[in-house]
Amino acid sequence: MDITKFVQLSLGRWRSQRSAHHLAFAHFEQVISTIDIVPLASDDPEVVALCKSNEIAPELATVPFRMTWEGESDWEEEEISQGTTILVPIPDPNEPQKGKLLRDRGYAETIPSVGNYQINEEGVFSLLTPYDRAMAEEKIWFCGDNVRFRVSLIKTSAGSGVVTASFSSEIRSLNKEKKS
Amino acid sequence: MDITKFVQLSLGRWRSQRSAHHLAFAHFEQVISTIDIVPLASDDPEVVALCKSNEIAPELATVPFRMTWEGESDWEEEEISQGTTILVPIPDPNEPQKGKLLRDRGYAETIPSVGNYQINEEGVFSLLTPYDRAMAEEKIWFCGDNVRFRVSLIKTSAGSGVVTASFSSEIRSLNKEKKS
Repeated sequence: MDITKFVQLSLGRWRSQRSAHHLAFAHFEQVISTIDIVPLASDDPEVVALCKSNEIAPELATVPFRMTWEGESDWEEEEISQGTTILVPIPDPNEPQKGKLLRDRGYAETIPSVGNYQINEEGVFSLLTPYDRAMAEEKIWFCGDNVRFRVSLIKTSAGSGVVTASFSSEIRSLNKEKKS
Repeated sequence: MDITKFVQLSLGRWRSQRSAHHLAFAHFEQVISTIDIVPLASDDPEVVALCKSNEIAPELATVPFRMTWEGESDWEEEEISQGTTILVPIPDPNEPQKGKLLRDRGYAETIPSVGNYQINEEGVFSLLTPYDRAMAEEKIWFCGDNVRFRVSLIKTSAGSGVVTASFSSEIRSLNKEKKS
């Protein structure tokens, strides 16, 4: 498994079932959402701009993609959470299983972010993203071609305490005709 | 990380917050439970009996332990789920990161089980347990000494489809005085 294969497997529409555990209060949150992952061209103007803003040569961008989500939480029932972000992997030329992931809108904070990823021998993609006031740690892995699991931890910026842990089960949606 | 260190880190009382995803119905289940993990002597009669019933020499048993849980689910509110099981790791003499895990009461079915475990370089303990009508796949890892995460998948026995995926966040309980 390398980043190209990982992103290719991720393309499409997913139905996501996510549980968040707010650890200090033993509080549960449940979210059902739809996630669309579509490929972008390496010379897409947004990809090029994101590379430049990170002072990275745009030709290093590999399998960039856009992720769009729309979900309903049982916690903020009135509100439909939605968003879109572009993600640009920059593999390490010396260690192809590692690299940087540029993002124009982060997970823990809605600002651009740069994370460090790594894909292990079992095919688990791990991503560590430092933010100003937090640190996000994600693990994503496939179980066959149509099921994907994701564990996301939000830690204090020192990395010591876990504030929120969430788990997503993502199933490839067969409703291709509904795809936008 | 080896099995001895992994079990030693696991000893104690844990408060567990678990979310189960029943994938076909996008159904969520939430469970709060208390888990106690206590060490057993290698010559404990129950450990010896479990080894013998699996035709394994009892002297191969390494850091056996008992796990006891008591929890409340939001799905079966009337019912408090509780149970206890003994677990006996049998490391592979040639590959110390791998081995068998004997259990006198399985996770997917309440019958004795034998799983195959493996601990990877990142310290993730993976366990694959075949049952008559299902296959259970678990991943457990620590985040510091006092936080543990667990992902459990129940698959069809052919291993193709995931029926249930669950995620537990486990925090070491500081109420030592309540420990039985």
